[in-house]
Amino acid sequence: MALIVHKYGGTSMGSTERIRNVAKRVAKWARAGHQMVVVPSAMSGETNRLLGLAKELAPAKHSDAYSRELDMLASTGEQASSALLAIALQGEGMESVSYAGWQVPIRTDSAYTKARIESIDDLRIRADLAAGKVVIVTGFQGIDGDGHITTLGRGGSDTSAVAVAAAMKAHECLIYTDVDGVYTTDPRVVPEARRMNKVSFEEMLEMASLGSKVLQIRSVEFAGKYKVPLRVLSSFTDWDIDIEEEARSGTLITFEEAENMEQAVVSGIAFNRDEAKISVLGVPDKPGIAYQILGAVADANVEVDVIIQNLSKNGSTDFSFTVHRNDFAKTVDLLKDKVLPGLGGATEVVGDAKICKVSIVGIGMRSHVGVASTMFRSLSEEGINIQMISTSEIKTSVVIDEKYMELAVRALHKAFGLEQA
Amino acid sequence: MALIVHKYGGTSMGSTERIRNVAKRVAKWARAGHQMVVVPSAMSGETNRLLGLAKELAPAKHSDAYSRELDMLASTGEQASSALLAIALQGEGMESVSYAGWQVPIRTDSAYTKARIESIDDLRIRADLAAGKVVIVTGFQGIDGDGHITTLGRGGSDTSAVAVAAAMKAHECLIYTDVDGVYTTDPRVVPEARRMNKVSFEEMLEMASLGSKVLQIRSVEFAGKYKVPLRVLSSFTDWDIDIEEEARSGTLITFEEAENMEQAVVSGIAFNRDEAKISVLGVPDKPGIAYQILGAVADANVEVDVIIQNLSKNGSTDFSFTVHRNDFAKTVDLLKDKVLPGLGGATEVVGDAKICKVSIVGIGMRSHVGVASTMFRSLSEEGINIQMISTSEIKTSVVIDEKYMELAVRALHKAFGLEQA
Repeated sequence: MALIVHKYGGTSMGSTERIRNVAKRVAKWARAGHQMVVVPSAMSGETNRLLGLAKELAPAKHSDAYSRELDMLASTGEQASSALLAIALQGEGMESVSYAGWQVPIRTDSAYTKARIESIDDLRIRADLAAGKVVIVTGFQGIDGDGHITTLGRGGSDTSAVAVAAAMKAHECLIYTDVDGVYTTDPRVVPEARRMNKVSFEEMLEMASLGSKVLQIRSVEFAGKYKVPLRVLSSFTDWDIDIEEEARSGTLITFEEAENMEQAVVSGIAFNRDEAKISVLGVPDKPGIAYQILGAVADANVEVDVIIQNLSKNGSTDFSFTVHRNDFAKTVDLLKDKVLPGLGGATEVVGDAKICKVSIVGIGMRSHVGVASTMFRSLSEEGINIQMISTSEIKTSVVIDEKYMELAVRALHKAFGLEQA
Repeated sequence: MALIVHKYGGTSMGSTERIRNVAKRVAKWARAGHQMVVVPSAMSGETNRLLGLAKELAPAKHSDAYSRELDMLASTGEQASSALLAIALQGEGMESVSYAGWQVPIRTDSAYTKARIESIDDLRIRADLAAGKVVIVTGFQGIDGDGHITTLGRGGSDTSAVAVAAAMKAHECLIYTDVDGVYTTDPRVVPEARRMNKVSFEEMLEMASLGSKVLQIRSVEFAGKYKVPLRVLSSFTDWDIDIEEEARSGTLITFEEAENMEQAVVSGIAFNRDEAKISVLGVPDKPGIAYQILGAVADANVEVDVIIQNLSKNGSTDFSFTVHRNDFAKTVDLLKDKVLPGLGGATEVVGDAKICKVSIVGIGMRSHVGVASTMFRSLSEEGINIQMISTSEIKTSVVIDEKYMELAVRALHKAFGLEQA
C-alpha cells in the first residue's frame, strides 16, 4: 500500500488498444492496494501533428504571443490522451478522473514552450485518491501566474511525473517507456550492453545529457533535488505480469549513496555525434578573451558544450569548444565576421563537423585514480586519436573523429568490464 | 467602428489554408476599425475523431464521470483550432490571443456534454480589445462551479458566439458557415427557394427546430433573449470582397418587430423526415391519461414532438404523438409492455415510421386568417392526405406520408409565393 506515480510515454499511449493496456496495468496496481497517480504523454505523433499545423500558419518573426499560442495548441494533446486514459480506466471498472495542468494546478513560470514548474497543489489529487479514484494528471503543461497555459518543452511529461511524485511524496515514480531500462551503453552499438538494475541520479544526469535519450534531463535533476526514487521500465511487457516482478524490473535511479550502489567504477558509456568542434587559434592570452568569444556565441542563442583552453605559448593560446552540428556553419561565420576583427593579429578560426564525443560515466570515478588513463590507453590501442579531453567528477569525455565512434564505445565497454553483471 | 463577433464553423476551419482565409477575413474587419472577437469551431472531423476514440474505450454503463471525461476530451478540438487561428492572425500581422472557455471564463452549469451558459466575464476580453488585439474565444465549452470543463452539446459554438456577443453587447454576431444564408426552404428540394435577407428570430426558432440545420436552436433562443442581431453568411466568398457588401450579405435574424420585416405572411417551409407517428387508440377519456402515456415515454428518455388528442367519442379517445424515428420501435414496445396493461380494455397501439412533418412558418400568420386553409387546400389539390395537424402562433405543421414530402414542400412554396423576392 503506497502512493505510486506512473508515467507513460507517447508510444505507450499510441492507440486505443495501447491505452487500454495501460489502463489494465494501472488497474492492476490500484487493485493491489496502491494509490495511483498517472501522467500520460500525448498519443505518439500528436504533438508533431499540431506543431506542424502551427508552422504552416506561423508569422515570420516569432514572438512571445506566438509561443503562448503554441502552448495553447500543444497542451491539447496531453489533455486528450489523459481523458482517454480516464475513460479506459472507467472501462476497466475503476473510478478515475483526469486533470489538466491548470486544474491541479501545476504552477510554472511564464517561459512559454520551456516553462519551469514552480509549485504543485496536491489538495485536489489527495481528495480524489482518498475517495478511491485513480487520478490522471496531464503531462508537459502547467499554468502561469496570469492564467496562461504553459508547456515544459520536449519530454516535459517526465518532469511533470517527477514533480507530481515529489509534491505527493510518492513512494516511487515509474517511467514506462519503449525500452526496458537504462543500459551501460546503446545496445545497437554494443550488443553486450547490459541493463543496469540501479544507477545513481548523478550518473543518470550525465548519461541523459550525453545522449542516452531515455529520460528528459530536467526530470532527473528534479528527482535528485527532491529525492524521488525513479524507475525506468518497459510498457511493452504483458500488462498482467506479476506485480512484484514488475516492481523490481527496469532500472532504478536512486539518490542513495554508494554503499547500496553497484560497485563498478565506470557505470556506462555515453556518446553523441550531434556535435561539431570549433577552434580559435592564436588568441592573445589576456583577460576577457573567453567572454569575448563565447559571449558572442551565446548572444546568437548557440549552446556550447565542451570548452577547452590550453596553456599559452609565446603570449597566445588556442581556444576550442563544441556546438550542436546544426549551429556549426552559423557559429563559424559569426566568429569570422564579428569576433576575429576584435581579437587582433594572428587569430584564425578552424572547425570540424565530423567529430563525436564519447564519455565514460561513473560515480566510482570520484575515488578511483587511473580511470582516465585506462580510457586513453584503450583508445590508443585501437589507434584512435583524441582531439579534445574534458573531465568532471563523475565523467571523462573525449572528442574523436566520428568514424571511430562505434569502435571507441565497444573498446571502452570491454575495457571497463561493463558486459559483466 | 463597432464591436463585432464572428463565428466560423468546422468546415470553414477545416484546413490550414482555410484557417488562413479566416484570418485574412478577420484582419480585414479589424483593419476597417472594428473590435473583433472570433469564436471558431473545431476543425471539421476533429470532434468526431476524438469521440470515436472515446467510444472504443468507453465503459458499458455511462456515468457522469464518463461524461466529464468526454468534455475534457472534446473541448481540446476548439482549443487547438482557436490557437491556430490566433497564430494565423499573427501571421497576417495582427496582434491576437486565444482563450479557452475556462480562461474567459465562460461559466456553465455542470450538465456535462449539454451544459448551459450561466455567465461570461468580459473583463479579460475587453482589456485585450482595448490593447488592439483580436480576441479568439473557444466555442462549445465552459467551466462549471467546481472548475471542471463542460461542453455545450453539438453545434454549441453557435451558442458560445451569441453568448459572447450578448455579454460584450456586440453590434452584431456574424455566423460564417458553408451556406450563404437562410432559405425559404431547402434548395435541394425546391430549386426556386429564395434566400431571405431578414427573418425574425421567432421564425428562425421554428425553422431551426423543424430541421433547417443552419443554426443550433439554443443559439437562436439566446439571441432572442438578449436581443443580439445575428447574421448567417457564407465563409466561402473571397475573403477580400468589399466589407460593406459582406456586412449586408446572408440573412439577418432580427428581434425587431414586423414593420421592418419582409411582409410575407409565410416566410418559409420547414420539413423533417426523422420522425415516426405513434397512436394509442381507444383510450378511456379520463384525467391523468396523457401523463400516464407520455410520462412513461419521457422516463425512457424519448423526446416527443407533435402531440394530438382528439375529442372523445363514447368515453374514449385516440391519442397520437411523434417521436424520433430511432426511438420508434423502443417506444412502441414500451407502450405495449408497460402502459397498455394499466389503461384497461379496448386500447391498442399502432404506429407508422414512414411519415414526415411539413411546416409553414411565418410571423405574419399571427394576424392573418386563412393561412392554414390555404395550406390544406394546396395539399388536397395534390392528393396528399393529412394524418395529423398541429398549430402554433407562427407555424402550422402537418404529418403526411413521407413519399409525398418533396411534392408537398414544392406545392406549398409555390402556394405562398415564396419564390418571389
